[in-house]
Amino acid sequence: MTGRVTGVGTGPGDPELLTRKAVAVIEAADAVFYVEADGKPSRALATVDAFVPQAAARCAISMPMRADPAEGQASYDRAATEIRDRAKAGQSVAVLCEGDPLLYGSFIYLMDRLPQRPAIVPGVPSFLAAASVLPAGLVRRSESLSLIPGTLPTDAFKQRLEACDCAAILKTGRHLPRVRAALRDSGFSRAHIIVEATTAAQQIVPLEGYTDDTLPYFALILAWKEAAA
Amino acid sequence: MTGRVTGVGTGPGDPELLTRKAVAVIEAADAVFYVEADGKPSRALATVDAFVPQAAARCAISMPMRADPAEGQASYDRAATEIRDRAKAGQSVAVLCEGDPLLYGSFIYLMDRLPQRPAIVPGVPSFLAAASVLPAGLVRRSESLSLIPGTLPTDAFKQRLEACDCAAILKTGRHLPRVRAALRDSGFSRAHIIVEATTAAQQIVPLEGYTDDTLPYFALILAWKEAAA
Repeated sequence: MTGRVTGVGTGPGDPELLTRKAVAVIEAADAVFYVEADGKPSRALATVDAFVPQAAARCAISMPMRADPAEGQASYDRAATEIRDRAKAGQSVAVLCEGDPLLYGSFIYLMDRLPQRPAIVPGVPSFLAAASVLPAGLVRRSESLSLIPGTLPTDAFKQRLEACDCAAILKTGRHLPRVRAALRDSGFSRAHIIVEATTAAQQIVPLEGYTDDTLPYFALILAWKEAAA
Repeated sequence: MTGRVTGVGTGPGDPELLTRKAVAVIEAADAVFYVEADGKPSRALATVDAFVPQAAARCAISMPMRADPAEGQASYDRAATEIRDRAKAGQSVAVLCEGDPLLYGSFIYLMDRLPQRPAIVPGVPSFLAAASVLPAGLVRRSESLSLIPGTLPTDAFKQRLEACDCAAILKTGRHLPRVRAALRDSGFSRAHIIVEATTAAQQIVPLEGYTDDTLPYFALILAWKEAAA
């Protein structure tokens, strides 16, 4: 490769929470890739929009979210080929990723398909954005914090809850009733739902005050075993 | 309070990894506070140094790291009083925190002592900076990730290791032999030590190739149970 491929973390959604390096890489990009799930506008692209050069190619990676695995793989294959070809032609390619590229990011699947190691610009992850808008200290001293997908089977989910002091529950969606019960059973006495932290659509709701059985996509739960801090 | 108090995450050490918001808050600050542990220069201050206004007060919070708890508490009390007084006088006060203010940050202890909720600018945490320089995907799909202090007693440490797919081990220091054995016993087949990620002093060493019995302060271990990604 003669050009450079960079996975760029775009953070939680507020353009002010982009790093200086993310902005510099995007401003220098010949092509900007982003995942477009189910044809919805990309939040990562919206976050960096003001910094994408007029002349840069904007390349959507179409990803049907409930695709059968083969369809998803084919979509990553096609995108990786285009990224590689553009880099071979000397272009600077920025691949946008909400939050951080290496933390549940689809960029991991693209990275697996590239012939050389890309550069990575880390980003502010959603659980830290969520803590910042409460605001609430997450962990101190010898406490441990776990990032746990709500999609895990109940037994595995509870095992993970039992082995931490503070939990950030991601990908809860329709698993909310199960997640709520597990948190209660595992002694998490304080929990907040934070929706779209740092954006205009931000909402903060104590878990016990949330009556719906489902969480929106850009929502997470922060939960603590103790009532401290 | 008429002035504003903001806890500012300064990220892992590379000034390029400051957020735009961190820079804006620091450039507008009348006073900048930072912890000075054992009289050593503050890494957080060094990271933002170019953005601190000439006229701003630079206020060190002296913190002997092996202080008896009362001494540490007194130091936070004094700093909180000065922060509150400056805010009352209408000043904009930025409190610098390596990484993120709410993730093992001493800012949590200051926040507890302030009469009103401060603003928080989240930052890029060290474990994401470490992953970015390898680079290696941390977790995907239903995997879980835990931040675990190496200072935990062995049984609690192992319980936490058993309940995750990827672990970031912090505060290892002289506990390295114990940490190394626990990782091996818990099936973590791949582990890297990353020292001072994103700075000029950065080092990356596979855990099995590291022969010392102690890790430096700005080092962490990233470990995975599977050899994937």
